[in-house]
Amino acid sequence: MSGTHGFHLFDALMNDERADAILSDHGYVRRMLAFEAALARAEGLEGVIPSGAASAISRAVEGLHDEDVNEMAAAIAEGTARAGTPVIPLVKLLTARVDPDGQAYVHWGATTQDVMDTALALQMRDVSDLLDLGLSQLASALATLAHRHRDTPMIGRTVLQHALPVTFGLKAAGWLGGVTRTRQRLAESAPRVLALQFGGAAGTLASLSSKGPAVAERLAMELGLALPAMPWHAARDRIAEMAAFCGILCGTLGKIGRDVTLMMQTDVQEAFEPAAPGRGGSSTMPHKRNPVLSALLVSAGLQAPGLVATIMAAQMHEHERAAGPAHAEWRTLPELLRLTAGALKTAIALAEGLDVRPDRMRANIDTTNGLVMAEAVMMALGATLGRLEAHHAVDEACRAALAQNRHLRDVLAEDGRIGAALGPERLRALFEPEAYLGAAGLFVDAAIAEHEGMP
Amino acid sequence: MSGTHGFHLFDALMNDERADAILSDHGYVRRMLAFEAALARAEGLEGVIPSGAASAISRAVEGLHDEDVNEMAAAIAEGTARAGTPVIPLVKLLTARVDPDGQAYVHWGATTQDVMDTALALQMRDVSDLLDLGLSQLASALATLAHRHRDTPMIGRTVLQHALPVTFGLKAAGWLGGVTRTRQRLAESAPRVLALQFGGAAGTLASLSSKGPAVAERLAMELGLALPAMPWHAARDRIAEMAAFCGILCGTLGKIGRDVTLMMQTDVQEAFEPAAPGRGGSSTMPHKRNPVLSALLVSAGLQAPGLVATIMAAQMHEHERAAGPAHAEWRTLPELLRLTAGALKTAIALAEGLDVRPDRMRANIDTTNGLVMAEAVMMALGATLGRLEAHHAVDEACRAALAQNRHLRDVLAEDGRIGAALGPERLRALFEPEAYLGAAGLFVDAAIAEHEGMP
Amino acid sequence: MSGTHGFHLFDALMNDERADAILSDHGYVRRMLAFEAALARAEGLEGVIPSGAASAISRAVEGLHDEDVNEMAAAIAEGTARAGTPVIPLVKLLTARVDPDGQAYVHWGATTQDVMDTALALQMRDVSDLLDLGLSQLASALATLAHRHRDTPMIGRTVLQHALPVTFGLKAAGWLGGVTRTRQRLAESAPRVLALQFGGAAGTLASLSSKGPAVAERLAMELGLALPAMPWHAARDRIAEMAAFCGILCGTLGKIGRDVTLMMQTDVQEAFEPAAPGRGGSSTMPHKRNPVLSALLVSAGLQAPGLVATIMAAQMHEHERAAGPAHAEWRTLPELLRLTAGALKTAIALAEGLDVRPDRMRANIDTTNGLVMAEAVMMALGATLGRLEAHHAVDEACRAALAQNRHLRDVLAEDGRIGAALGPERLRALFEPEAYLGAAGLFVDAAIAEHEGMP
Amino acid sequence: MSGTHGFHLFDALMNDERADAILSDHGYVRRMLAFEAALARAEGLEGVIPSGAASAISRAVEGLHDEDVNEMAAAIAEGTARAGTPVIPLVKLLTARVDPDGQAYVHWGATTQDVMDTALALQMRDVSDLLDLGLSQLASALATLAHRHRDTPMIGRTVLQHALPVTFGLKAAGWLGGVTRTRQRLAESAPRVLALQFGGAAGTLASLSSKGPAVAERLAMELGLALPAMPWHAARDRIAEMAAFCGILCGTLGKIGRDVTLMMQTDVQEAFEPAAPGRGGSSTMPHKRNPVLSALLVSAGLQAPGLVATIMAAQMHEHERAAGPAHAEWRTLPELLRLTAGALKTAIALAEGLDVRPDRMRANIDTTNGLVMAEAVMMALGATLGRLEAHHAVDEACRAALAQNRHLRDVLAEDGRIGAALGPERLRALFEPEAYLGAAGLFVDAAIAEHEGMP
Repeated sequence: MSGTHGFHLFDALMNDERADAILSDHGYVRRMLAFEAALARAEGLEGVIPSGAASAISRAVEGLHDEDVNEMAAAIAEGTARAGTPVIPLVKLLTARVDPDGQAYVHWGATTQDVMDTALALQMRDVSDLLDLGLSQLASALATLAHRHRDTPMIGRTVLQHALPVTFGLKAAGWLGGVTRTRQRLAESAPRVLALQFGGAAGTLASLSSKGPAVAERLAMELGLALPAMPWHAARDRIAEMAAFCGILCGTLGKIGRDVTLMMQTDVQEAFEPAAPGRGGSSTMPHKRNPVLSALLVSAGLQAPGLVATIMAAQMHEHERAAGPAHAEWRTLPELLRLTAGALKTAIALAEGLDVRPDRMRANIDTTNGLVMAEAVMMALGATLGRLEAHHAVDEACRAALAQNRHLRDVLAEDGRIGAALGPERLRALFEPEAYLGAAGLFVDAAIAEHEGMP
Repeated sequence: MSGTHGFHLFDALMNDERADAILSDHGYVRRMLAFEAALARAEGLEGVIPSGAASAISRAVEGLHDEDVNEMAAAIAEGTARAGTPVIPLVKLLTARVDPDGQAYVHWGATTQDVMDTALALQMRDVSDLLDLGLSQLASALATLAHRHRDTPMIGRTVLQHALPVTFGLKAAGWLGGVTRTRQRLAESAPRVLALQFGGAAGTLASLSSKGPAVAERLAMELGLALPAMPWHAARDRIAEMAAFCGILCGTLGKIGRDVTLMMQTDVQEAFEPAAPGRGGSSTMPHKRNPVLSALLVSAGLQAPGLVATIMAAQMHEHERAAGPAHAEWRTLPELLRLTAGALKTAIALAEGLDVRPDRMRANIDTTNGLVMAEAVMMALGATLGRLEAHHAVDEACRAALAQNRHLRDVLAEDGRIGAALGPERLRALFEPEAYLGAAGLFVDAAIAEHEGMP
Repeated sequence: MSGTHGFHLFDALMNDERADAILSDHGYVRRMLAFEAALARAEGLEGVIPSGAASAISRAVEGLHDEDVNEMAAAIAEGTARAGTPVIPLVKLLTARVDPDGQAYVHWGATTQDVMDTALALQMRDVSDLLDLGLSQLASALATLAHRHRDTPMIGRTVLQHALPVTFGLKAAGWLGGVTRTRQRLAESAPRVLALQFGGAAGTLASLSSKGPAVAERLAMELGLALPAMPWHAARDRIAEMAAFCGILCGTLGKIGRDVTLMMQTDVQEAFEPAAPGRGGSSTMPHKRNPVLSALLVSAGLQAPGLVATIMAAQMHEHERAAGPAHAEWRTLPELLRLTAGALKTAIALAEGLDVRPDRMRANIDTTNGLVMAEAVMMALGATLGRLEAHHAVDEACRAALAQNRHLRDVLAEDGRIGAALGPERLRALFEPEAYLGAAGLFVDAAIAEHEGMP
Repeated sequence: MSGTHGFHLFDALMNDERADAILSDHGYVRRMLAFEAALARAEGLEGVIPSGAASAISRAVEGLHDEDVNEMAAAIAEGTARAGTPVIPLVKLLTARVDPDGQAYVHWGATTQDVMDTALALQMRDVSDLLDLGLSQLASALATLAHRHRDTPMIGRTVLQHALPVTFGLKAAGWLGGVTRTRQRLAESAPRVLALQFGGAAGTLASLSSKGPAVAERLAMELGLALPAMPWHAARDRIAEMAAFCGILCGTLGKIGRDVTLMMQTDVQEAFEPAAPGRGGSSTMPHKRNPVLSALLVSAGLQAPGLVATIMAAQMHEHERAAGPAHAEWRTLPELLRLTAGALKTAIALAEGLDVRPDRMRANIDTTNGLVMAEAVMMALGATLGRLEAHHAVDEACRAALAQNRHLRDVLAEDGRIGAALGPERLRALFEPEAYLGAAGLFVDAAIAEHEGMP
C-alpha cells in the first residue's frame, strides 16, 4: 500500500509522527467529527435541537474507534473526489451512524466551511502545542550549548571570511535568540489564530435565528478555541499568520542547518552532526561525515518560503467563500505544518547531539597566521604608541606577514618599537583569542536569561 | 532624469510618498548618518572616544542639508557599486565633513552591518508608524461603511454562487476584522522587530573592550530602538517577521480589492470605486467603470507573496554575516515595504470613497427568483408543517420554480398546504431578505467594537 | 492505513492516478531498480563487470513482482530516514536478491546521485509522456469548443467590465493557444531535460577508468534517455526547466478555470461545469452550480508558483553535490508534477463537458442597454455623417441612454440626423453583435490551424 | 533627485546600464511610441487611415529627442497615477505633437493593452538580445576557464565533504553547460515569446473591420516581432515563459556564485574574485577577500524565484483583460529582467577575472591525509590482490590512518601485502590525483564542443 500509493519515502526523512497523526486524513476526519459532536451538544444545550438528538450525535462520534475513523476517512477521500468537498460525505457517513432520532440534526445550521475551517483550527492548535513543546526543548538544547561553550573561542566568519574571534557559545546564543523570539510569536498569535469558524451558509448563522451567537460561544468553549468577533471563512489572515510563523521558524532552523553544514566541511571540521549508525557515512570514504540533519534543515528553509507564498497569495478569497484560493490552502497548509514540525524535530536531534570540536575551532583561528588578531594588537599598541603610529606599524606588519607567509606575531616581534611598547609576554598574550572577545560572554548570558525568562 | 534612469511609471500608480521618502536613497543615507552621529554621542558619553570628537561628528551630521544628503547619496550609490557596500563610501564622505579632531573617530567600533541593519531598523520603524496611522484610518473608513450598511442586505456569494442574504455591513466588517488584527500584529511585533543592531566586526563589540554593552544601551535609547539581548546581524527572523507582516496585510487589502472588482462587474454593479477625473473611464464606452484602485490592491496581493518568499529564503545567513542572502534583502525588503505602504494608501482611498449601491444589491438578491430564500421559508414552514414535510414541500417548489423560471414565492403560493400554514402576508414577508439575516448585525457590532477597543 | 498515515483526502480531488503511480514510492523504487539493472547490463557489455554478474543483477530486477517492490519501498522508506538517502538501503536490498556471483557488482561505479537523478529523469519522462497525451486531448476539446462556438457572440470583458462583443469561440481559442504553446515547450525541452545522470562519486566516472563514457552511452540508450555532454548532478537547470514548464501550464489551466468560475457566477450564468452526481450541488440551494473543477484549476494556478519558486531557489547546489538544496527538490518536484498532471486531467474533464449557454451569452450582451455597441454605430455613422459629428452624436446618445436607463438604440432612433443617415433597419442591424466581431472568426481559425499543425 | 526620490543605491551594485535603459520609463515610453508610429504606418498602407495622417503620426514620433521623451515620460508617470494606465496620457501627449490632420488617427483601433504589451514585447526582445550577447560572452569566459584548467586537479566536494579529485576545468565545464542550455532556451522561446499584441478593445480588431489581420501582419513586420495566431492580451504564458527563463538563468548564475563564495572561504582559498580597488577589502583585516560579485550572484539566485512566482501566479487573467494580475506584472517583470541582466553582467566580470589557485587546490586535496585516494588504491590493488582482499586491506588502512592521523600512503606502505603488490613507486603514483580523474578531461572537451557548436 505504502509502496504503490504512498509518497512517504522522502517525507520519512524529516517528519514528526505526532504532527503527521494530527494532519493525516485520520486526524482531520477526527477533528471534523469533533466539531459535529460539539455543535450538537452546544445546540442541544441552547435548545436549537432536541437534547436527545444532541446526545445521539455526540454518542455516535464518541463511540468511533480508530478503525472506524480510518474507514470513514477512506470513504470520505473517495467522496471528496466526487463532491469537491469532504463535508458532504462526512455528514452522510456520520448520519448513518447516529440513532434515528438524531439523524435529522446532524450538522444542523453549519456549512462546509465551518467544519473544515474549525477542524483546521483544531489541527493548528494541536500542532502549535507540539511546536511549543519542541521549541522549548530546542531552546534548552541550544542554551546548554551556549552555556557550555560560552568561552570557547572560534573564528567569526563574515561573508565567509575569517574576521575576529567569537565564541561558539555566541553562535549558539544567536541561534537560541531566534528560537526564543519564535516562541514569543507563537504565544502572541495563538489567541488570534486558533479561533472557531462558525457562520452557517453565508456567515450570518441565519438558520439558528437568534441563537447563533450563544451556540457559537458554547461551541468555542467546547472545542477549546477562541471565539472571534465574527466568522472568518473569507478572511484568511489567520491562516497566513500561521503560515508566516512556519516560514520564519523554518528559516531560523535553516540558518542553524546552514552553519552546521559549513562547520562540518572537510575544510573546517569544527562541529559534526551526532553520529548515528548508517547515517552520513561512506565505506569507501571513511573520512566523510555527510551532513544529513543539517542539510535537511537547510532544505526546510528552502521549501517553506514557496509554501508560505502560496498561502499568502491565496488570501484573496472571493466574497463569502472562494472559488480556488480556498482549495489552494487544503494541500499547502498541512504540508507546511508537517515540514515545520519535521524540521523542528530534526533541529532538536541536531542540537542535542552536536559534536563540537573546540580544539579544531582553536586551531582554525590560526589559519591566517594571526592576522585576525591585528585589531587587538593595534588597540593595545595604541595606548602606548598613539593610535596613528600603532595603526601604521600594525598595518605594515600585516602586509609583511601576508607577503612572507609568516605569523604576524613573529613579524611584530622583530619591530623594535613594538618590542619596546609591549614586551614579548604581552605580545604573545595579545594573540590569544580569549583576550579579545569583547562582550561575547555577556551576550551569551543575556540570550540565555531571555530564554530562561520565557514562561 | 526620471525619464532616462527612472522606473517610476508604474510605481506612481500605488505609492505613498512618505514611505518612498523613508525608503529612498536619501532616506536610507539619512538614517545611516543618524546611526553614526548617535554612535559618536554614545561613545563620547561612555568615554570611548573624546567628547570633542563626538561633538564634531554629531555636528557634522546635524549640519547636513537635504542637498548635502542627496549629493552624498549619489556619491554613495557610485561607491557602493565599487565597494560592494554603501558603508565604506559613507564613512569616507562623512569623515571629510567632520572637523579634524573628530575624523579619526567616525564609525568607531562599528561595522558595515551595524550601520546598514540599524538604518534598516529605523526605516522599518518609520514605515511602521506610517502603516499604523494608515491602518487606523482604513479601519475607521471600514467601520463607517460597516456601520452605515449594518442592515443593507445583499446576496452572500459562496464559490461565486448566490447563497443566502448577508449585509454589505457584514462584508465590510469582515474586511475590518482583518485590518484590526493587522494592527494587533504590528503592535505586538514592534518591540521585537524594531531593534538596534550593534556588534562590531564579528558581533562581540571587542574593539570597545568592556564598554560595548553600555554604548549599545545608550545608542538604542538615542535612536529610539529596542535594545536586543545580543546583536542580530546573522539572525534574520526580525526581517522575516516584518516581511510576513507586509505579506499578510497585502493579502488582507487584496481581498478587499478582489471583492470590489467583483462587485463592480458590469454584471453586478453593487459598488464602485470613487470616481476621479480621468480614472477608469472610457470615452467610447461610457458605461465602463474600470476598477483601478481595487485592481491595484489585487496586484499588491499577488506581488507581496513572492517578495515575502525571497526574504524568508534569505534567512539562512552564513555564520556571522551572509554572502548572498544579505544582499537579497537589500532590494527586496524596501520594495515590499513600499508596495505595502502604497497599497494601504490605495485601500484608504477606496474605502473612504466607495460608492455603494444598496438598490442594486437589493435587486440582485432576486436574480434567482427567490430561491436564495428557500431555507428561510423552510425554517418558518417547519414550525407548523413539521420539518420533514416542510423540507419536502419547499424542495418540490424550488425544482418547479427553477424549471418554469418562476418566482419561488409564486410557486409556493399555489400550494394549498403552504397557504394554509403561512398565509400570503407571511409568505411575502419571508421573502424579504431583512427577515433572514441572523446575527449579521451583531457580528457587525462586534467587529466595530473590536476596532474601537484598539488603542 | 490510508486513514492513519495518509494525506490523500485533498489529493484525490485533482489527481491523475497514472502520474501518482509514476511518482509514488513504488514508481520511484521501480525506476531506481531499472537504473541498477541497465547499469549492470551496460557494464557487462563493456566488460567493466563480468557478464554473469550483469545477468544476475538484471535478472534479479526483472524478477520483481509489484509486491516485492512494495515491500522494498517500505523498507527503503525506513532506511532512508536513517541513512539520509534511499540509495544505501536500495542497494542493500537489491544485493540480497542477486545471485552470489553478481552481488559484488551491484551499483558498480555509480553513486547515490546517479541513481536518484536518473530515476527522477525517468519519472519526468514518463510524466511528460502523460502530459503530452493529456495536452493533446485537452487541445482537441478546446479546439472543438472554439470551432463549435466560432460565431457564438458573448460580451468581451476587460477589467471585468463589458467592453465589445467577442465570441465564445475566441475565448476558447485563446485557451487553446496557451495549450498549443505548452505542447511546443514540452517537445523542445524534452531532449534537454530528460537526460541520463551518471558520474560516479564526484562526477568523473573515475572508478570505471577509461570505460566511463562508453558505459554512459549504453546506459542512456538502455533507459531511453538523452546522453548529456557531462554529468549534471550539480547543475539543476534541467530540473528548474521542468518545474517552470509545470508552472506555466498550471497558469494556463488556471486561466481557463478562472474564466469558467466567472462565467458560472449566478450573476452571469454563461457556462457551467459538466454536471456530475453529487458534485457542486446543494439540496437547500438548488440554484447553485458550485464550481469544482474550475476552482481546482484556479487552485493549481495558485499552488504551482510557490513550488516552482522552491525548485528555482534550490538550483544553487554547492560544488559537486548540495547539502540542502538537493533535499528541497525531493518532496517538491514530485508534488509539482502530481499537481500538474492532476490539473491537466481536471481541465480535460472541464473542457470536454463544458455546458455553454449561447442564449444567456447573447442576453448578457444587452446588460448595458446597447452601450457596448456604441463603437459599432459610431463607425457606421462616420461614413455618412463624418467622423467627428458621428462621434459627437453617439457620445451624446450614450450619455442620455445611461442617464435615462434606456436602450441606446431607442435614444439614437429619436435623433433625426441618425435616422436620416442610417434608417431604422440598418440601425437595428448595427446593434446585432454578429455585425461587429471583426477578425474573431479568423483568429479562431488560425488558433485551430496552429493546433492542427502540431505533430 | 536621485537622492530624494531614487532607489538606486543597491540597484547600482548589480545592474546592466543597457538593460536599465531599455526597461526605464524612457525606454518604455520610446517603445510605446514606436508602436503608435508603426501602427499608423501600417494602417496608412492598408488604407485604414489616410496616408497623410499616417505620415504625420510617424513623423511626430521620429522627431522626438531624448529630452522630449524624458519630458513625456515624466508627464506620463503623473498621468498614469491618475488614469490607472500610461496609455491614456501617452496618446494625449502624442496627439498634441502630431500635425492637425493626423491627430484624429493617433492610436486608431488600438487599445491600452496593445500598446503596453507590444512595448513590453519590444523590451523583452531588446533585453533578450542583450542577454544573448552576454550569455555568449559568459560562455566564452567559462569555456576558457574550463579549457585552461582541463587538467587542474582539485578535490570534488559532495555535500560539502571531500570526495574524490575532480578538475577545476570540470567544475567550470559544469557551469558552462548550464549557460549553453540557457542559450538554447532563449533561442527556442524567442519566436514564441517575442510576439506582437494587437487586438483592439476586446481582441477582435472589430474597429478595423476586415482589415485587422492585414494591419497586424504589417505591424509585426514593422516592429520586428512575431505575428501570433491571435492576440494574446489575456494569455500570459509568454510572459511566464520569459520570467521562467530569467529564473533558470539566475539560478545557473547563482550556482556559480555559490561555488565561488565557498572556494573563496579563508578555510579554502582555491579561487578569488578579480581584485578591484576598494572592493572586498578591509584595512584592518588585510587577509580578507570579501566576495562581492559572487555574493551578488547568490543574491540574484535568491531574488529571482519570488519574482518568477509572482509572474506565474499572475497568469490567471480574467476574461479579456485582468483586473489585478496584469498590474502585478508591471513592476515585477521589468524588475526581474533588470536583475537578470545585472546578474549576467556580474557573472561575466567574475568569470573573466576569476583568480584561480591551482597550488592551493592541489594542497587541499591532501587535507584528508590521502583518504580521498582510497578508492583509487583499492581499484589498483584489486587487480593483483583480488577485489575482496584489496577492499579489506585498504579499509583497514583507512581506519588506521584516520585514528593515527597519518597519511594513508604511509600506513599502506607498512603493509607487506601492499608493498609486494604495488611497490613504493606505484603506491606513490596512486596518490597523485591526476591518475584518478576518469573522464573529467573528456567531459570538459564535450562541454566545450557543445558550446562551440552553438550558432
